[in-house]
Amino acid sequence: MTDQFARKSEAWSARFSEPVSELVKRYTASVGFDKRLAMADIDGSLAHAAMLESVGLLSADDLKAIRAGMETIRGEIASGAFHWSIDLEDVHLNIEKRLTELVGDAGKRLHTARSRNDQVATDIRLWLRGTIDDIVAALEALQQALLAKADEHAGTIMPGFTHLQVAQPVTFGHHLLAYVEMFSRDAERMRDCRKRVNRLPLGAAALAGTSYPIDREMVARALGFDGICANSLDAVSDRDFAIEFCAAAALVMTHVSRLSEELILWMSPRVGFIDLADRFCTGSSIMPQKKNPDVPELARGKTGRVNGHLVALLTLMKGQPLAYNKDNQEDKEPLFDTADTVLETLRIFADMSGGIAVRADRMRQAAAEGFSTATDLADYLVRKGLPFRDAHEAVARAVRAASDRGVDLSELSLDELRAFSPLVGADVFEALTLEGSVNARNHPGGTAPGQVRQAIAAHRQRLGG
Amino acid sequence: MTDQFARKSEAWSARFSEPVSELVKRYTASVGFDKRLAMADIDGSLAHAAMLESVGLLSADDLKAIRAGMETIRGEIASGAFHWSIDLEDVHLNIEKRLTELVGDAGKRLHTARSRNDQVATDIRLWLRGTIDDIVAALEALQQALLAKADEHAGTIMPGFTHLQVAQPVTFGHHLLAYVEMFSRDAERMRDCRKRVNRLPLGAAALAGTSYPIDREMVARALGFDGICANSLDAVSDRDFAIEFCAAAALVMTHVSRLSEELILWMSPRVGFIDLADRFCTGSSIMPQKKNPDVPELARGKTGRVNGHLVALLTLMKGQPLAYNKDNQEDKEPLFDTADTVLETLRIFADMSGGIAVRADRMRQAAAEGFSTATDLADYLVRKGLPFRDAHEAVARAVRAASDRGVDLSELSLDELRAFSPLVGADVFEALTLEGSVNARNHPGGTAPGQVRQAIAAHRQRLGG
Amino acid sequence: MTDQFARKSEAWSARFSEPVSELVKRYTASVGFDKRLAMADIDGSLAHAAMLESVGLLSADDLKAIRAGMETIRGEIASGAFHWSIDLEDVHLNIEKRLTELVGDAGKRLHTARSRNDQVATDIRLWLRGTIDDIVAALEALQQALLAKADEHAGTIMPGFTHLQVAQPVTFGHHLLAYVEMFSRDAERMRDCRKRVNRLPLGAAALAGTSYPIDREMVARALGFDGICANSLDAVSDRDFAIEFCAAAALVMTHVSRLSEELILWMSPRVGFIDLADRFCTGSSIMPQKKNPDVPELARGKTGRVNGHLVALLTLMKGQPLAYNKDNQEDKEPLFDTADTVLETLRIFADMSGGIAVRADRMRQAAAEGFSTATDLADYLVRKGLPFRDAHEAVARAVRAASDRGVDLSELSLDELRAFSPLVGADVFEALTLEGSVNARNHPGGTAPGQVRQAIAAHRQRLGG
Amino acid sequence: MTDQFARKSEAWSARFSEPVSELVKRYTASVGFDKRLAMADIDGSLAHAAMLESVGLLSADDLKAIRAGMETIRGEIASGAFHWSIDLEDVHLNIEKRLTELVGDAGKRLHTARSRNDQVATDIRLWLRGTIDDIVAALEALQQALLAKADEHAGTIMPGFTHLQVAQPVTFGHHLLAYVEMFSRDAERMRDCRKRVNRLPLGAAALAGTSYPIDREMVARALGFDGICANSLDAVSDRDFAIEFCAAAALVMTHVSRLSEELILWMSPRVGFIDLADRFCTGSSIMPQKKNPDVPELARGKTGRVNGHLVALLTLMKGQPLAYNKDNQEDKEPLFDTADTVLETLRIFADMSGGIAVRADRMRQAAAEGFSTATDLADYLVRKGLPFRDAHEAVARAVRAASDRGVDLSELSLDELRAFSPLVGADVFEALTLEGSVNARNHPGGTAPGQVRQAIAAHRQRLGG
Repeated sequence: MTDQFARKSEAWSARFSEPVSELVKRYTASVGFDKRLAMADIDGSLAHAAMLESVGLLSADDLKAIRAGMETIRGEIASGAFHWSIDLEDVHLNIEKRLTELVGDAGKRLHTARSRNDQVATDIRLWLRGTIDDIVAALEALQQALLAKADEHAGTIMPGFTHLQVAQPVTFGHHLLAYVEMFSRDAERMRDCRKRVNRLPLGAAALAGTSYPIDREMVARALGFDGICANSLDAVSDRDFAIEFCAAAALVMTHVSRLSEELILWMSPRVGFIDLADRFCTGSSIMPQKKNPDVPELARGKTGRVNGHLVALLTLMKGQPLAYNKDNQEDKEPLFDTADTVLETLRIFADMSGGIAVRADRMRQAAAEGFSTATDLADYLVRKGLPFRDAHEAVARAVRAASDRGVDLSELSLDELRAFSPLVGADVFEALTLEGSVNARNHPGGTAPGQVRQAIAAHRQRLGG
Repeated sequence: MTDQFARKSEAWSARFSEPVSELVKRYTASVGFDKRLAMADIDGSLAHAAMLESVGLLSADDLKAIRAGMETIRGEIASGAFHWSIDLEDVHLNIEKRLTELVGDAGKRLHTARSRNDQVATDIRLWLRGTIDDIVAALEALQQALLAKADEHAGTIMPGFTHLQVAQPVTFGHHLLAYVEMFSRDAERMRDCRKRVNRLPLGAAALAGTSYPIDREMVARALGFDGICANSLDAVSDRDFAIEFCAAAALVMTHVSRLSEELILWMSPRVGFIDLADRFCTGSSIMPQKKNPDVPELARGKTGRVNGHLVALLTLMKGQPLAYNKDNQEDKEPLFDTADTVLETLRIFADMSGGIAVRADRMRQAAAEGFSTATDLADYLVRKGLPFRDAHEAVARAVRAASDRGVDLSELSLDELRAFSPLVGADVFEALTLEGSVNARNHPGGTAPGQVRQAIAAHRQRLGG
Repeated sequence: MTDQFARKSEAWSARFSEPVSELVKRYTASVGFDKRLAMADIDGSLAHAAMLESVGLLSADDLKAIRAGMETIRGEIASGAFHWSIDLEDVHLNIEKRLTELVGDAGKRLHTARSRNDQVATDIRLWLRGTIDDIVAALEALQQALLAKADEHAGTIMPGFTHLQVAQPVTFGHHLLAYVEMFSRDAERMRDCRKRVNRLPLGAAALAGTSYPIDREMVARALGFDGICANSLDAVSDRDFAIEFCAAAALVMTHVSRLSEELILWMSPRVGFIDLADRFCTGSSIMPQKKNPDVPELARGKTGRVNGHLVALLTLMKGQPLAYNKDNQEDKEPLFDTADTVLETLRIFADMSGGIAVRADRMRQAAAEGFSTATDLADYLVRKGLPFRDAHEAVARAVRAASDRGVDLSELSLDELRAFSPLVGADVFEALTLEGSVNARNHPGGTAPGQVRQAIAAHRQRLGG
Repeated sequence: MTDQFARKSEAWSARFSEPVSELVKRYTASVGFDKRLAMADIDGSLAHAAMLESVGLLSADDLKAIRAGMETIRGEIASGAFHWSIDLEDVHLNIEKRLTELVGDAGKRLHTARSRNDQVATDIRLWLRGTIDDIVAALEALQQALLAKADEHAGTIMPGFTHLQVAQPVTFGHHLLAYVEMFSRDAERMRDCRKRVNRLPLGAAALAGTSYPIDREMVARALGFDGICANSLDAVSDRDFAIEFCAAAALVMTHVSRLSEELILWMSPRVGFIDLADRFCTGSSIMPQKKNPDVPELARGKTGRVNGHLVALLTLMKGQPLAYNKDNQEDKEPLFDTADTVLETLRIFADMSGGIAVRADRMRQAAAEGFSTATDLADYLVRKGLPFRDAHEAVARAVRAASDRGVDLSELSLDELRAFSPLVGADVFEALTLEGSVNARNHPGGTAPGQVRQAIAAHRQRLGG
C-alpha cells in the first residue's frame, strides 16, 4: 500500500492526477509560521491517542509507540534537529509524517476520528490559552511597576490637563493610577476572552463529527479545557476567539499608545516633567545632542499594527459560508504577531516604568500656572451660597482680569477678588493653593493623596502582590 | 448677575472676548445626535440631585423644584415640544438651560459637584447598558427562531460543505445550530461587556474629583450601577466600553454576514435549497422576473459599516493624552449607528427565519452527489483493520475510478469496491447511505438527528423559552 | 393597465404574491439618504431622454414633456415641497413616480434602455465629481491661507523637532510649508481619482447592456464625462471610485490630524507657541479659566470617522460576486459622510489659519534651548577636515559636558570647546547662532528664509493665486 | 578618536551614560526586516557620494574607495556572506559600518550632508518604485491571461447574475472582461501612485536641510527620480506614498477576492460552471473525495491581510507631529508584506487562469433557467409601443404564470403569451432565445459577442501584447 505522504510530491492523493504546482505549494504552505504550534499539536495528539485507546480504537501498544515517538519528536524540535518540509504543507502533516517514520502503522492510526480541521482549531486554542495567561501576567507586572511609581509620587503635584490645557492640579500618583485602571480592565477582558477560547473543538472531525465512538469530554479534561464546542460545524469554522483576542489586544495597545503619548510629551524639553533612563533611548545619526524616547514612540506606532490585524481577521471572516474554508489559514500570522507585539511591549513597559525620573519641581511650576485652581474659587463661592452657574461666571471674569494683568488668581488682592463677588473672604487664599485644591478632592476616585494611597493599597490587594 | 446661557451667543463665558463663529458652532455642536441621550441625562441628573440633597448641598425645596422641572422637560421631549438649540451645543446644556428657565436658581445649583465630562460619560453608559439589554434580547429571539426552524429540520439531510465542495452529509437542523452557537457566544460577550459598561463615572467631575463631600456609592445604587469608576482621570477619558461594545457588535454582524452569504447562496437557482418569503424580497426596475434576497444582501453589506465604526473608535482613542479631549465627542455617532444597525438587523433576521421555505428534495439530491460518504467508506475500512492513512488512500482511488465513470461510490458493485480493498464486505452499502452517514455521527456535537434534538433541548433550557 | 408604482404597497410587481413587510421596507429603503442625489438624477435622466429621442426611442413631444416635468420637480425639491415617500424606496423611483404623475406615459417611457443599476452608478459619479471639485477648491483655499501665514513668518525661528525633542532650528514659515506640500499632494490625488470617477456607466442597463440602439457617447458628452465604462458588468458593480476617493480623503484627514496635533501642542501652556482666536475655542462647564482648542481636537477625532468609512467600503466589496448586489446600497452613507467631513473640516481650517496668533518670542526661546545647533558644530568640524562620524562623536561629548553644567554650547568658552577638538576656532560662534544655522540651510527644500520665500512664490504660482 | 560604531555596545554616543538595554535593542532594531532595502541603500549612497565629490565635499580618491567598498558589500550581501548585526540597529548602519571597515575615513565621510531620516525615506521610495513596476507588469500579465480565456469564450453563454439570481444571459468572455477592466484600473492607480513615490527626499537631512552646498537635482537625476521633495520637514516625515500604495493594493486584492468568490462558486458542484486544474487544488486529510480550490480561497482570505496593513499605516500616521518620529519605523513591515502578497497573488492568478476548464453545457443550461430573457420580452413589447413600465408589469404577470406552471417563458404558447399583452406576435420567440438576447446587446460595453471581441482587441492594443 502506497504511503500517502510519500506521494505528496506526485499528487495530493490518489484522487489527483498531477502534483500541486511549485508556486501553489509555496503560496498555500503554512509550515513556515504554524510550526510555532508544534508543542500544542503534540499535546493534542497525545490526548487524542489516549482517548482512542480508552474507547478501544487504538491498542495499548500503539499508544505506547505513539507516546515514545512523540517524545522523540519533541526533542528533535526543541534541539532544532527536526526537518520541516514545505512539501508537507503544515505543522500537522510534518509531525504525523515523522511519527509514522518513527513508529510505523501506529502513526497512521493516530488520525482516526479526527481531521486537520478540528486538529488545527484545537492547537490554536491551546496555544492562545497559554498566551493569554502570559499576557495577563505581563499586564499585572506592568500594573505593579506603575503602582510602585505611583506610591513614590502619591503626593507629587502636577497639572491635570483636559484639552491639553491646564485644568486642575492632580498628583502624579493619581495620574499613573488611571493607567493601572486601564491595564486592569485589559486583564479582565483577557480573562473573559479566555473562557471562550478554552473550549475543545476536537471531535468535530472534518465538519460533521465522526462515526467512531469517541469520548470528547475525556479529551477536554486531559487538555484542561472548560468544555467542548457543542456543534461540529461551528467548531471547525469558528474564529471568534481569535478576533475577540485581537480586539482585547487592540485595547491594550490603545492604552499603551496613550501612555506613550504622555511620556513623549512629558520628556519634550518645553514640558520636561520626566526623563527616561538612557538605556531606553537612542540618539541621532546626525544630531549629536539628541536623546530620543524610542520605546514609547515605537510602541505608539505598533498600535497601528495591532489595529490592522484586527481588521484583517474581521475581513477574513466576513461572509464566509460554513464550514471550514482555506481562507482561515490566514488567521494565524495576524494572531501570532498580535500576541508577540503585545507581550514584548508590556514587558518593556514594565521594565521602563522603573526608569522614569520625575522632575517634581517642573511639574509643580506648571501646575502653578494656568489658573488651575479657578474651579476651587468657584466651589468656594458656591459654599458661600452662590448658585454654581453664577459662581462660574464670576470666576471667569476674575480669570480674564488676572490674565490681562499677567498674574495668577492667588496673586490678586482680597479687594480685587471681592470686586468679582462680595462673598469672597480672607479664607479664599487657602482654597487657591495647589495643596488645598488637591486635598479637597477627598472622595473615592479623587486626587487627594490619601485617596491615592488607598487606591494603591486596594490594587495591590487585588493583584496579590 | 449675567445668565451664562444667555451670553452664549456673545461669548462662551466672561473669559472670552468674542463669540464662537457660526462655522465653529455648527462644527462642534453635538445636540443633533446626542439628544438621544436625553432620558439618560435626566435620570442621571435626578440621581445626582438626590445625592446633593442627601449630603446637604441642595435644599429639599431645590430638589423638589428640580424634580418637577425635569418631569416637565421629559414630557416636552416625549411630545416633541422641546426646543433643541444648537447655540447650547449639546443635550446637557439644552436641558439645564430649560430647567433653569422653569425653576430658576435651583436649576443653576444642579451642576454643583459635577462637570459635563463625568455627566456625558454617565449618560452614555446608562444608554449603552439599556441598549445591550435590548441586543441580548434580540439575540435570544433570533436564537429561538433558529431553534424552531432547526427543530423542524433536525433530520433533513443536506450536503455539508467545506471549501464550498461537498464534504459529508449533515442535517439542516445541525447546520442552523451552528448559528445558534455563534449568536449565543455573542450574547455572552455582550453580557461580559455590560459588566465594564455598568460602572459610574459621576463624581470624577472635570477630571480630578470634586471638593464637595459627595456620596458616589449612593448615586451608583440609585442608577443601578454595579460600582464606581475608581479613578477620576480614567473615568472621564475611558471609552473602552464603547470600543469593546463595537468589537462585540462587529462579531454579531460577522455572524449575520455568514448566515446571509449562505441564504443568498441557497436561494440562488442552481442551488435552490430554500426560498425566502416574498415579503423579504424585492424585484428589479428592469427585469420583470427578478426576486432578490435584499435583506440578507443588505445585512451582509452592513458588516462593513460596523467594522468601520470599530476602526473609527480605535483610531479616535489612539495616542490621546489624559484626560478628556474634544476628540471624544466623536465617540457617539459610530456607537449609536452600531447599536441601531445591530438591533434592526437582528430583529429582521428573527422575523425572516420563519419565512425560510426549505426544499428538502433539492438538499437531499445535492447530498447524494459529490461522494459525500467517502469518509464513511474509509472509516468502514478502519473498522475492518486498515490504518486510517491507508484507508484514505484506498478510497481516494475508488473515488477517482467512480468519478471517471460518472457514478457515485454506492453505485459501484461489491466486486468493484473490493478491487480497492479486499476488506470490503456486503455490509459496506449501509455505510454508504446518507442516513447511515448522518446517524453514525452520534456523539455530542455530531450531526446525528438525535444529537441535534438534544442540542435544541439544551439551548431551549438555557434560553428559558 | 395597472400602475406599477401604485401597486408597490401591495406587492413589488405582479410577480410577487405579498407586499414587502414594513420592517423590510424601512430596512431596505434608501430615500432617507440618497435623495441628496436628486439633482444628479434629474441631470442624468434628461441626458438619457435626449439621447432616446435622438435615436428615435422617444418622441419629441415626450422629450418636451419630460423636460417640463423635470423642471417642475426640480422646483419642488428646491423649495422643499417635494413629497418623499419611503414606499418608493429610493430617490430614483420617487422622482420617476412624480414625473409620471405630472406627464403620464412619457414618464413611463423614460426608463427605457436603462436600469436602476446603471442609473444609480451614474448619479453617484456625477455627484462625486462635483464634490471632488469642491474639495480641491477647499484644499487650495487652505493652502492659500497657510501660505499667507507662512509668508508672515518666513523668518520666524522656532525649534524643529524630531521625536518631539529639539533637533535643529527652522522657521515657522518653513514648518507651515510642510503642510502646504501635504495638502497639495492631496489635491493631486483627488484629481487623479476624478479621472476614474468621470466615466459613464449609463447604458450598462441592469448588467448586460440593452437591446435598444443607444448612443452612450452622446450621453457621456452631454453630462461632461471623459468617456464610457467599457464593460457593462463592471459598470454596474464597480465601486472602486468611491473607495479610492475615501482613501484619498483619509489622507487629507491624516494631514489635518497632524496639523491639529501640533496646534494643540503649540497652544498648550508649557509650549505656548501660538494662541487661537477665541472664536475657534470653547470653555468648560466647570472650570472658569478654560479655553480649549475644540476645532483641532474635533478634527483630529474625525480622522477616525473617515478611516472607518474607508474600512466600511473595503469590507463591503470584499468577495462580492458580479454583478450588482444589494450590499452596494451601503456605499452611500460612508461616502456622503466622508465628503461632508472633509469639506467642512477644510473650510474651517482655512478660516482658522488666519486666527493663529504666533508668539515668536516663545518659539525663539525654545529654539535656543536643547542644543539645537549641535549639528552645526559637527558640520563646522567637518569643514575643518574631520570625518563626519568623528565630528559627531566630538560634539556628543561637548553636549554632554555642557548639559552636565546646565549651559548651552554657545555658552562654552573657546578653550572649553577646543578641548573636544583642536580644530575649533573663533569663528565657531557664528555657526552656533540660530540665524547662522537657519541661513546655512540654503538649498531647495531647506529652511533658509530665502528658500522659504521662493517656495511660497512657487506655490502661489502653481495655485494661480 | 573613538569609533562611534564600536562604542554602540557601550552607549549610543558619547552623550549617553549607559548602553541601550538588550530588551530595547531587540524591540527597536529593524535590521531583521529592513535589510531588504540593502541594494536601494547602496544605490542611494553611491549617488550621494558622487554628488558630494562633484560639489567638492569628497575627494575623488574617497569616492573611488567608497565605490570599491560598496561593490564588495554588494557581493557579500548577494552571496549571503554579509554579517548583519542587531547591535547596529538597521540596514543603514550595518552597511556604513562595513564600509568603514573596508575603506576607513572615506566611509566615515559618506554620511556628510545627510541623515538616516532622509536616507531611509530615499531607500523606501527606490524600493517601492521598483515594486510598483513589478506589480504593474504582473497586473498586465494577468490581464493578458484573462484576455486569452475571454477570447476562447467570447460567445459562450452563461447566466449573468444580479443578487446571485439569474438576471440576463451574458457571455463568459464578457464576464471575464469585467475583471480585465478592474485590473486595468488597478494598474492605472499604481502608475498614478508612482508619480508621488518617485520624488527624492535626500537633502532634507535630519529635518531642516543641510549647511553643505549640496546639489539635490543631480542626485535626483542619477537615481531616476522625477523631482525632489520640496520641503525638508515634509520629506522626512511623509509616508503618504506608502499609504496610497497600500490603498491601491487593497483594491487589487478586493478585485482578486471578487474573482476568487466567483471561481469558488463556479466550482461548487451544484453550479459546476468550471473546473480548476488539479495542480491548483489540494485534498483533505480525512475526506478522500475532496478537491478544494485552495488558491482562490486563500487569496480571498489575503484581502484581510492587505486591508489590515492599510489600517495599520493610517493609524500609524494619525496625529503624528512633525518631523520624523520613531513610530515611522513601523511603516516597513506592512508595506513589504503588502507588496509580497499582491505580487505573489497576481502571479499565481495569471498562471491559474490558463487552468480554468469551462463547462459550457452547464453554463448554458443555467442560463436557460430563471426566465433570463424576461427583459427581452419587455423590450419587445416596448418596441411594439407599450410604455416600459407597463411592459415590465405585463411580463411580471407572464413570469408568475410560467413559474406557477414550472415552465420557461419560451415554453408558453403564442396564445398564452398574448393573454398578457395583445401586442405579442409570432416574432416574439426569437427575442426569447439566449442567442437573441445576447446578440441584441450590441453597443459598446454590451455583451454581444462582436462587442466582446472588439473590447478584447482594444485591450490587447493598450497592453501592447
